[in-house]
Amino acid sequence: MSGLVSLVGAGPGDPELLTRKAARRLAEAHLVLYDALVSVEALALAPRAQKFYVVKRCKRHAMSQETIHRLMVRAARRGKRVVRLKGGDPFVFGRGGEEALALRAAGVAFEMVPGVSSAVAAPALAGIPVTHRGVSSAFTVVSGHDEAAWRPVVDGLPPRASTLVVLMGLAQRQAIAAALRARGWAPSTPCAVLLAASTPEAHAWTGTLEEIGQAPLPESRADAPGTLVFGEVVAVRAALTADTKQEGAALAAGGAARRLPWQQ
Amino acid sequence: MSGLVSLVGAGPGDPELLTRKAARRLAEAHLVLYDALVSVEALALAPRAQKFYVVKRCKRHAMSQETIHRLMVRAARRGKRVVRLKGGDPFVFGRGGEEALALRAAGVAFEMVPGVSSAVAAPALAGIPVTHRGVSSAFTVVSGHDEAAWRPVVDGLPPRASTLVVLMGLAQRQAIAAALRARGWAPSTPCAVLLAASTPEAHAWTGTLEEIGQAPLPESRADAPGTLVFGEVVAVRAALTADTKQEGAALAAGGAARRLPWQQ
Repeated sequence: MSGLVSLVGAGPGDPELLTRKAARRLAEAHLVLYDALVSVEALALAPRAQKFYVVKRCKRHAMSQETIHRLMVRAARRGKRVVRLKGGDPFVFGRGGEEALALRAAGVAFEMVPGVSSAVAAPALAGIPVTHRGVSSAFTVVSGHDEAAWRPVVDGLPPRASTLVVLMGLAQRQAIAAALRARGWAPSTPCAVLLAASTPEAHAWTGTLEEIGQAPLPESRADAPGTLVFGEVVAVRAALTADTKQEGAALAAGGAARRLPWQQ
Repeated sequence: MSGLVSLVGAGPGDPELLTRKAARRLAEAHLVLYDALVSVEALALAPRAQKFYVVKRCKRHAMSQETIHRLMVRAARRGKRVVRLKGGDPFVFGRGGEEALALRAAGVAFEMVPGVSSAVAAPALAGIPVTHRGVSSAFTVVSGHDEAAWRPVVDGLPPRASTLVVLMGLAQRQAIAAALRARGWAPSTPCAVLLAASTPEAHAWTGTLEEIGQAPLPESRADAPGTLVFGEVVAVRAALTADTKQEGAALAAGGAARRLPWQQ
């Protein structure tokens, strides 16, 4: 068997949201190099493989990117099947491009196995469609990790034209909300903070642009992976999680839509 | 068994890119309502189900959205397991939000099963990461179907800050390129046109913003689902598909990067 490195997305957390191809590559794997946010259940799909935890959150004790490249190349040259398993999708803030370039440079066979990105799935599982007819025909995904990266994008976003999804931006939520208000977004724009989406620890907060900076987040989940959503589509969640059938019916029919601003 | 409607994403086309949960729901299904772009192999995962093709491309002979809602609700009320199967992800231009609201209004149990969206997977499978360290920390996804929807978003996008991905925009590629140039994007900005991603008929064209309007597309695939990508990340594809190992190595190391403009 010739060596192959598969750059695989593990999806948002629920092991049922791995793709069939991801599961197959794990079953065949001799070596799995995985990141934080990859579940125990996903790793259990690779019973024959050696497994190394290579990228930790907070960067402490993480392997260098060069070491990861070296491990993958060495194993593939020995004919091994290698799975590089990353939360979400490898190409959405996952350094998949860098790793693919390193493998290409080494002349090692590799493939991309796209995954379900939290950028779409975390909102979906909370009842928030990133696009919705008559409300939003576009969405922008940005990393909140680095202000120099998100600021030019956020500053360019006209109000109501697009849903904004921010990954890794919990700590920046106040600053991002302020930038959107400066850009002309209404203070009443619905927003969401989603933690640990698709897992049993999932937690969702919804409110407005003026409230998001003070969103009360459970302390025990302060280090959970977080997704922020800004835009009118967030109000769909209220209709989908309405307490009574009647309220749901009224909202769906465009009736007394207390929490669906575009229907008022 | 109580009725349940699952709104399921089928991914970009390759049946191996369905999620494990999608495959499980198909195996249990009594009724599958599917759209264009869903593969024969995906449908074969539901051997026990009645299957109806409900949304055709070009809208001819399509069932109305209301009929789709009625079919789902009726079957669920009879205790059936229903899978509403859509190409890509149900919430990325898939009307999943509308269908969820209708199910909520009817008091029928439903769930979201996110899928791999073509917005990220089509570029990934062509060697184009929608984000790439030092090149792009954001991406915007827009439907090219309706100019009134994409124009305010595209007009707001500053050059180089974000990758732009356009779904259903083949016919609008010239107009979108003109809008980006008017917004200050360089005529030499790399672009891609990707057809039938993840299938045996996949076809990729790459060039520049000034060339994309005249991109020679295979006539036989004029009706294939198309994804457009605009931004410097498109140049990663050239490095990953370089003819020789040496060229790949030089590109990865930041050497003679003829086609990687950010390294020059």
